[in-house]
Amino acid sequence: MERSHQQRHQRPIDYLRNSINKIILIKVKRNRLFRGKLGSFDDHLNLYLEGTSQIFEYQDDEGNIREEHEDLGSIVLRGDNVIFVNLADNF
Amino acid sequence: MERSHQQRHQRPIDYLRNSINKIILIKVKRNRLFRGKLGSFDDHLNLYLEGTSQIFEYQDDEGNIREEHEDLGSIVLRGDNVIFVNLADNF
Amino acid sequence: MERSHQQRHQRPIDYLRNSINKIILIKVKRNRLFRGKLGSFDDHLNLYLEGTSQIFEYQDDEGNIREEHEDLGSIVLRGDNVIFVNLADNF
Amino acid sequence: MERSHQQRHQRPIDYLRNSINKIILIKVKRNRLFRGKLGSFDDHLNLYLEGTSQIFEYQDDEGNIREEHEDLGSIVLRGDNVIFVNLADNF
Amino acid sequence: MERSHQQRHQRPIDYLRNSINKIILIKVKRNRLFRGKLGSFDDHLNLYLEGTSQIFEYQDDEGNIREEHEDLGSIVLRGDNVIFVNLADNF
Amino acid sequence: MERSHQQRHQRPIDYLRNSINKIILIKVKRNRLFRGKLGSFDDHLNLYLEGTSQIFEYQDDEGNIREEHEDLGSIVLRGDNVIFVNLADNF
Amino acid sequence: MERSHQQRHQRPIDYLRNSINKIILIKVKRNRLFRGKLGSFDDHLNLYLEGTSQIFEYQDDEGNIREEHEDLGSIVLRGDNVIFVNLADNF
Repeated sequence: MERSHQQRHQRPIDYLRNSINKIILIKVKRNRLFRGKLGSFDDHLNLYLEGTSQIFEYQDDEGNIREEHEDLGSIVLRGDNVIFVNLADNF
Repeated sequence: MERSHQQRHQRPIDYLRNSINKIILIKVKRNRLFRGKLGSFDDHLNLYLEGTSQIFEYQDDEGNIREEHEDLGSIVLRGDNVIFVNLADNF
Repeated sequence: MERSHQQRHQRPIDYLRNSINKIILIKVKRNRLFRGKLGSFDDHLNLYLEGTSQIFEYQDDEGNIREEHEDLGSIVLRGDNVIFVNLADNF
Repeated sequence: MERSHQQRHQRPIDYLRNSINKIILIKVKRNRLFRGKLGSFDDHLNLYLEGTSQIFEYQDDEGNIREEHEDLGSIVLRGDNVIFVNLADNF
Repeated sequence: MERSHQQRHQRPIDYLRNSINKIILIKVKRNRLFRGKLGSFDDHLNLYLEGTSQIFEYQDDEGNIREEHEDLGSIVLRGDNVIFVNLADNF
Repeated sequence: MERSHQQRHQRPIDYLRNSINKIILIKVKRNRLFRGKLGSFDDHLNLYLEGTSQIFEYQDDEGNIREEHEDLGSIVLRGDNVIFVNLADNF
Repeated sequence: MERSHQQRHQRPIDYLRNSINKIILIKVKRNRLFRGKLGSFDDHLNLYLEGTSQIFEYQDDEGNIREEHEDLGSIVLRGDNVIFVNLADNF
C-alpha cells in the first residue's frame, strides 16, 4: 500500500533514478537504438550514458534478425529525440 | 449531476488517474502501439509503464490482421510522442 | 447584439464548452478522424472523450467512399495532434 | 498619417479584428484550405469559425482546376496548423 | 560610426521596421514565396501584409523559369512558417 | 590561460559577436546555404544579413560540383531554420 | 563513492564541461556528423566548435565504408539539431 501511494506521487521521469549506474536501452526517433550505463538524466530526458553502443538491427540473407553494434563510449543524448527508455530491470 | 459538474472542472489528463495500476493502450506517432500497466503520468503525458509490450500489427498471407508483441518490461515513454491514451475501462 | 459582443471576448477554445457531453468530430494530423462524446478539454486542446471511435475512410471497388470504425471507448487525446474540432451542432 | 502611425503599433494578429463576423479563407499546412465566418481568435491564431467549409482543389480530365467543398459547420481550428489567414476584404 | 554602433544593439527583427509600408518578399517553408506590402510584424515574425501575391516558379517547355501569381490581398502570415524575409531595399 | 577562462563563460552564441560586419556562411535546414555580412543576431539565432546570396550546389555533366548564386540583398533569417553558422575567420 | 554521489547531482549537459578544449563528435539530425574542438556550450546544447570538419560516410565500389571531410573551421551549431554528443574520452 505504501508503495502504491508513493507511486502516485512520483513523476514518470523519477523512475529513472533506480537505473542510475545500470544498463538501460533507449529507443530514439528515426529508428535508432542505444544501450548504455545511465550516468545522469534531467527533466527533458536528456541522458548522460557511459559505455554506450548504438544497435543496428537488420535481416540477413536467411531472414534472421541480426544486430550490429557501434561503440560510442560516453555520450550526452538530447532528450527531444527519445521515444522511450527501457529501465534497468527489464532485460 | 454532481458527476457532470465535476467533469467540467477536471482536466483531460486528470482522467488518467483512474487508470493507475491498470492496463492501458497507448497509440504513439510513427504507428507504434504500446500496452502496459500505468504506474505514473505527468502533465506532458510522460508515462511510466510496467509490464509493457509493443504491439505490431500486420497482415498475414491470407489477409488476416495479426499481432506480434515485443516485451519491454518497465519503460518511461516521452509524452510528446503520444497521440492518444486508451483508458483502462475500454478493453 | 449582446451575443455578438460576447463573441469577441470568448476565446476560440471557450466554444468547446457548449459541446461538453455532446458528440464531436476531431480531425487529427496524419489523416486520423475521431468521433466521441466530449468529457473535458484544456487550453492545449487536450481532449477527454467517451465512447470514441476512430473512423477510417476508404474507396470501395466501385469508387464509393466508405467508412470503417474502430471502437476505442474512453481516450485522452494529446492536443498537439489536433487540426480542428468539429463542434456538436454541426452534424 | 494617423492610420500609418497606428499601423506600426498594431500587431499582425490584431488585424483579424476587422474580420470578426466576416468570411475569411485559411490556408493550413498539409495543403488544406478552409473558408468560414470568423467568430473568435487568440494570440496562437487558434480560430473559431462558423459555417466552415473545407475546400479541395483538383484538376479535372480537361486540366481545369475545380473545387469541391465539404461542409463542416462550426469548428475550432488549432493555430499551429495555420500558414496564413486571408482577411475579409480580399475576395 | 554612429550607424555601426546602433547596428550592434538592434535585434534582427528590428530591421523590419524600415520596410513598413514597403514591398517585401517572404520565403516560407514548403517552397512558398509571397510578395506584399508590410503592414505590421511582431517578435515571432508574424506578418500582416497588404496587396499580397503568392508567387509560383516553374520551368516552361523551353526550360525557362517562369512565374505565376495568385493575388491574396491582405493576409496574416504565421511567423513559424517563415524561412527569411527579404527587406525592401533589395529588389 | 586568460582566454581559456573566458571561453568557458562565453555562450556559443556570443562567438557571433566577432563576426559582426564580416562575411559568414549559414547552413540552413532543407539544404539551403546562405552567405552574407552579419549585421545583427539574437539568442534564437535570428540573423540580419546584408549583401546576402543563396548558394545552390549542383553537379555538372562532367560530375564537377558547381555553385550558382541568387542575390538577395538584406534579409532577416528566422533562427529556427539554422543548422550551423560558419564564422568569419574560416574561409 | 564520492564520484557516484556527485554523478547523481550533475545534469547530463554538465558532462560536456570535461570536453572543453577537446575534440568531440556530434551526431546531428538528417544524418550529419561533425568533429571539432569544443569551445563552449549552453543548456540548449548550442555548441561553439573550432577546427570543425563535417564527415560524410559512403560506400565505395568495393563496398568499403569511406569517409570524406569538409573543413568548416569555427562554427556555432544550433542545439535543436543535435541527436547526441560523443564526449572527448571516447575515441
